Amino acid sequence: MTHAPLAPRSAEEQARLDTALVEMFEQRITFNQVLGLKVLSVKPGDVRGRITMKPELVGHYSYGRLHGGVISATLDAMGGLGLMVAIAERHPSDNTMQVMQRFSRMGTIDLRIDYLRQGLGPHFIASAEVIRLGGRVGTVQMRLVNDEGTLIATGAGAYMVA
Amino acid sequence: MTHAPLAPRSAEEQARLDTALVEMFEQRITFNQVLGLKVLSVKPGDVRGRITMKPELVGHYSYGRLHGGVISATLDAMGGLGLMVAIAERHPSDNTMQVMQRFSRMGTIDLRIDYLRQGLGPHFIASAEVIRLGGRVGTVQMRLVNDEGTLIATGAGAYMVA
Amino acid sequence: MTHAPLAPRSAEEQARLDTALVEMFEQRITFNQVLGLKVLSVKPGDVRGRITMKPELVGHYSYGRLHGGVISATLDAMGGLGLMVAIAERHPSDNTMQVMQRFSRMGTIDLRIDYLRQGLGPHFIASAEVIRLGGRVGTVQMRLVNDEGTLIATGAGAYMVA
Amino acid sequence: MTHAPLAPRSAEEQARLDTALVEMFEQRITFNQVLGLKVLSVKPGDVRGRITMKPELVGHYSYGRLHGGVISATLDAMGGLGLMVAIAERHPSDNTMQVMQRFSRMGTIDLRIDYLRQGLGPHFIASAEVIRLGGRVGTVQMRLVNDEGTLIATGAGAYMVA
Repeated sequence: MTHAPLAPRSAEEQARLDTALVEMFEQRITFNQVLGLKVLSVKPGDVRGRITMKPELVGHYSYGRLHGGVISATLDAMGGLGLMVAIAERHPSDNTMQVMQRFSRMGTIDLRIDYLRQGLGPHFIASAEVIRLGGRVGTVQMRLVNDEGTLIATGAGAYMVA
Repeated sequence: MTHAPLAPRSAEEQARLDTALVEMFEQRITFNQVLGLKVLSVKPGDVRGRITMKPELVGHYSYGRLHGGVISATLDAMGGLGLMVAIAERHPSDNTMQVMQRFSRMGTIDLRIDYLRQGLGPHFIASAEVIRLGGRVGTVQMRLVNDEGTLIATGAGAYMVA
Repeated sequence: MTHAPLAPRSAEEQARLDTALVEMFEQRITFNQVLGLKVLSVKPGDVRGRITMKPELVGHYSYGRLHGGVISATLDAMGGLGLMVAIAERHPSDNTMQVMQRFSRMGTIDLRIDYLRQGLGPHFIASAEVIRLGGRVGTVQMRLVNDEGTLIATGAGAYMVA
Repeated sequence: MTHAPLAPRSAEEQARLDTALVEMFEQRITFNQVLGLKVLSVKPGDVRGRITMKPELVGHYSYGRLHGGVISATLDAMGGLGLMVAIAERHPSDNTMQVMQRFSRMGTIDLRIDYLRQGLGPHFIASAEVIRLGGRVGTVQMRLVNDEGTLIATGAGAYMVA
């Protein structure tokens, strides 16, 4: 006997969930507003966001490069979003509120960031790839590229899930 | 033949350097202003800073905890400051401008943050301990505690130095 | 109402447990035998082990330094032992077999190693300090020093516990 | 004026270099022999090695899974090999001896390993991808899969280069 595959979420419910995810990520996580982090995609396998260079985000005003902390904060946030999308996909019978409740129980366990090149450019794209989603821990890899596609930083994070 | 120990910086020059370090860290690194990061000590072996909770720094407004990115940004910045103090101590014949020039060549190679407990409290103290300062790479360990001394997060970073 | 503190393990049971822990660590974890890893202390707050330099453990025979992988393997193993001791202390009513069963459900989530100085010396001491033991995840910091007390490497690891 | 592209190494010299690299990696790095680490490819962009399960490499004899330290040691070594291949490619006018001398100045700065799934299988393939090769620091990402292609662990390392 095999398990029947779970029926996917209806298109309406999925749209509601996507809207709620984006709204929470961009509006209710206050520090994401400080970063100006905008969601570009919450499709499973393609989770991406964007930050736009502005004076508050630079490390030293003479150089005009992104502060390392902006990079780590952006990649940490994007890792969490990637995991959230994966969790929602794994639980297709959860409605939007139930998925949001799962989010409230998530937390970053730890994070590694590799700073590869200077964060120069008018805007930056951050993406997240879930490399394992277990029952208790999820592991995500993240990347930040600038507008020319140059790889600025990579990250790896472990997160508690529930 | 042994090397004579290097004469330490004069008290006047050290005071000038400390002032310049604090001014650069708090004012010119724009994102540190966003974090509200204030320097408490730049003594070798005791490098400490402080952030004060405010709405912009929370992860989710319902919970009122520091955003993980605030923690990683603060610890990254504090690691750099700790290294700067160690570099200044190693080059006592450098004047303030020369030390500042060394700073402009520093950069974070990578960073690990362990998030141990929720970032709850009215303010937080971040500290940095240089565990190795080589000719090219420095390694620093960082800690964040809240106002009750509870350990919130630890970090380790490798930085390019010159 | 407050909880009565848990009665500690009897001295006999503690001795039995310590013997079982050491036997498992040194004998049943086969790769620890390859490393020649010996336990020096399994007291809570003082978990230490030792490896002795031998030709199999060097990175390149011309230099005679410990291979980085020996360092990471030793610190990973020692982090797990440190956590095991902390878990046993938290569950004083568990007998030796029950503690051993808890061990079988542990696993390393991730590990960071900072290689600070060359691994030179006749023997090395590895130690582990648990900085947080939660219900599901434990975080440990590890250190490796040589026979002269020189800090060779530090590590941080997150582990699943149950 | 633009720089003429560097002429690549001759096929003979490249073959000599590849042989030397493999010989050093498999034979002279003694601990790699303990791991039984064999090189499968040293082509730029495709650096791969292999370890075969054997009793010495398990974490606990009852479970028959690779010890975490075997995984970290293998990925650390493979990261170094990946970087070596990239360095050789960047310096095509270096002869084999000169490349080997560059290797003697390399060293791991730090390493992160994410343990994703149990290390079960008859053999394992480790691969390395250099994501940045600077003048002083190189950053590499590593992966370990089992014989079925299941991703067992990922790693990221920063290395000193010269």
